[in-house]
Amino acid sequence: MNELEIINLISKNLTYKGNAIKSIGDDCAVFEINKTYLVITTDMMFKSTHFPDILTPFQIGGRLITANVSDIAAMCAKPLGIVVSIGISKEYANKKFIDELSKGLNFMAEKYKCPVVGGDTNKSNELTLCGTAFGLTDNPIYRKAEIGDDICITNDLGRVFCALKMIEMRDKGIINKNQFNKLMEKYPNITKKLCEPEARVKEGILINRLINSSCDISDGLAKDLFYIGGFEIYSEELLKVVPEDVFEFCEEFNINPIEAVLNSGEEFELLFTTKKYLKVKEELKRINTKVVKIGRVIEDGRYLDDNVFKFGGYLHRW
Amino acid sequence: MNELEIINLISKNLTYKGNAIKSIGDDCAVFEINKTYLVITTDMMFKSTHFPDILTPFQIGGRLITANVSDIAAMCAKPLGIVVSIGISKEYANKKFIDELSKGLNFMAEKYKCPVVGGDTNKSNELTLCGTAFGLTDNPIYRKAEIGDDICITNDLGRVFCALKMIEMRDKGIINKNQFNKLMEKYPNITKKLCEPEARVKEGILINRLINSSCDISDGLAKDLFYIGGFEIYSEELLKVVPEDVFEFCEEFNINPIEAVLNSGEEFELLFTTKKYLKVKEELKRINTKVVKIGRVIEDGRYLDDNVFKFGGYLHRW
Repeated sequence: MNELEIINLISKNLTYKGNAIKSIGDDCAVFEINKTYLVITTDMMFKSTHFPDILTPFQIGGRLITANVSDIAAMCAKPLGIVVSIGISKEYANKKFIDELSKGLNFMAEKYKCPVVGGDTNKSNELTLCGTAFGLTDNPIYRKAEIGDDICITNDLGRVFCALKMIEMRDKGIINKNQFNKLMEKYPNITKKLCEPEARVKEGILINRLINSSCDISDGLAKDLFYIGGFEIYSEELLKVVPEDVFEFCEEFNINPIEAVLNSGEEFELLFTTKKYLKVKEELKRINTKVVKIGRVIEDGRYLDDNVFKFGGYLHRW
Repeated sequence: MNELEIINLISKNLTYKGNAIKSIGDDCAVFEINKTYLVITTDMMFKSTHFPDILTPFQIGGRLITANVSDIAAMCAKPLGIVVSIGISKEYANKKFIDELSKGLNFMAEKYKCPVVGGDTNKSNELTLCGTAFGLTDNPIYRKAEIGDDICITNDLGRVFCALKMIEMRDKGIINKNQFNKLMEKYPNITKKLCEPEARVKEGILINRLINSSCDISDGLAKDLFYIGGFEIYSEELLKVVPEDVFEFCEEFNINPIEAVLNSGEEFELLFTTKKYLKVKEELKRINTKVVKIGRVIEDGRYLDDNVFKFGGYLHRW
């Protein structure tokens, strides 16, 4: 079975919806509480699949918070808190690791004003972290775009793809450890985006009333775009999302930068649609956040430069 | 390191508290939202440590919901929803398992009116489930008992201890598979309490205004009692908590029933303290829930039959 088949089967069986306004199928579930909205999301991470070995324990803690809070940001809501469950394997059951991990949790929690308020600690075979973040908003923003909306992205994309490519080349023996370390030094912002990504909380809150739909870039643009519905995007615009160091890296290793932009996951930038692009741009400029328009929402079909756009995302398979 | 050392280290580092009214240290974290209180809790479970092999996939799903909702019940709050993250190993990545597991989740979710509204699905080395349940109440009940309170327990305790003893005897070869199956048939309610425990949601809501403190029996009475502070309990009273089949089982296998009562974890009964015992008893009778008074809250010290009571709970160790 692949991930989608499993999710579809589970979703089909979860027929009881209670008082939820939104359940499975968006960045967060949504409930109304006394005229405001509670949004809630969960994200589970395993050492073997989610934490490249270049991450410090402090960064592992921070990344868990960011990945969860990013879904709150995608609803354009304000974080309220997070609970974190930890499964610790023998290898990690030492004071140094736990101390740094929890300091990393606290550091990012404070950054987003999203305190870690509870958790569960267990023995496990593999280091496992599960966060559940929740927040509040008077106006939750869903993935539902309107036809004619401009499709926009905050800041840039591609660095995480390059960072993972560096690790892949090292693991395959294409470059040695020394060359790998030099690459990390040569491209510090590429390394940083993998190790210390940031959720776009301020951005989400700032543009809440100006946009029609929003999600965060967690699986990679090629997959996340599909939540929008119909769209047309242009490589000329996508290239504006590529930062200078990604161009340089792509040239050095013969990678198409469009491929890097489309397949860079866990970037935690916001992908949103709006009919007020200029106003959004002006608002985000206030906090020095760039915004790039990459295309338009259309009634039907998915196109890149007038060619049919095929699903390019990664699916877990068992 | 043991569990307590790890929890203490993490707690010490989580200095940022945000707007939380209560964070780590109770059954749930608590936030105020427009004059009501949001309570939230998380519980992580691994195949190797949390799911005895006699559980069906349907029961595994149900138990995860119950374990989480039980902490909402311990706050005497009303469940609102739950998110569930799942790490699936190759062994369990099949339609039959996922189908039954998710039906079990939905069944118990509906029972508690606590819909599963989101989650995360991952590939993992070991079957891993993490739930985060949340609820609402106008009056969250904490673990803070008042001196002079009666200490009470809902229904009975001991069956889970006996069920795990059965499994232990089978695994150690003290009884064979055939004898084990006969025991399960002979003691159906012992088997049932392990496989299909229930959270005391109705009870918690019903007695919310009558009690001073509350928690759920998850680690076993011997450990959970320590949350109360000072106490004196009596074995004569504890014996009233033991159901008939546990007496019979204990006699058959030469176990002290007091030991069974004190060390039976994941019972999900409520342990609460009150100065209105008779009124509580009357209220709970309306839903056919028994309540037993086992002792009293005192200023200082912990006693069982006038002897000093030592910590008897289980600690994870790495």
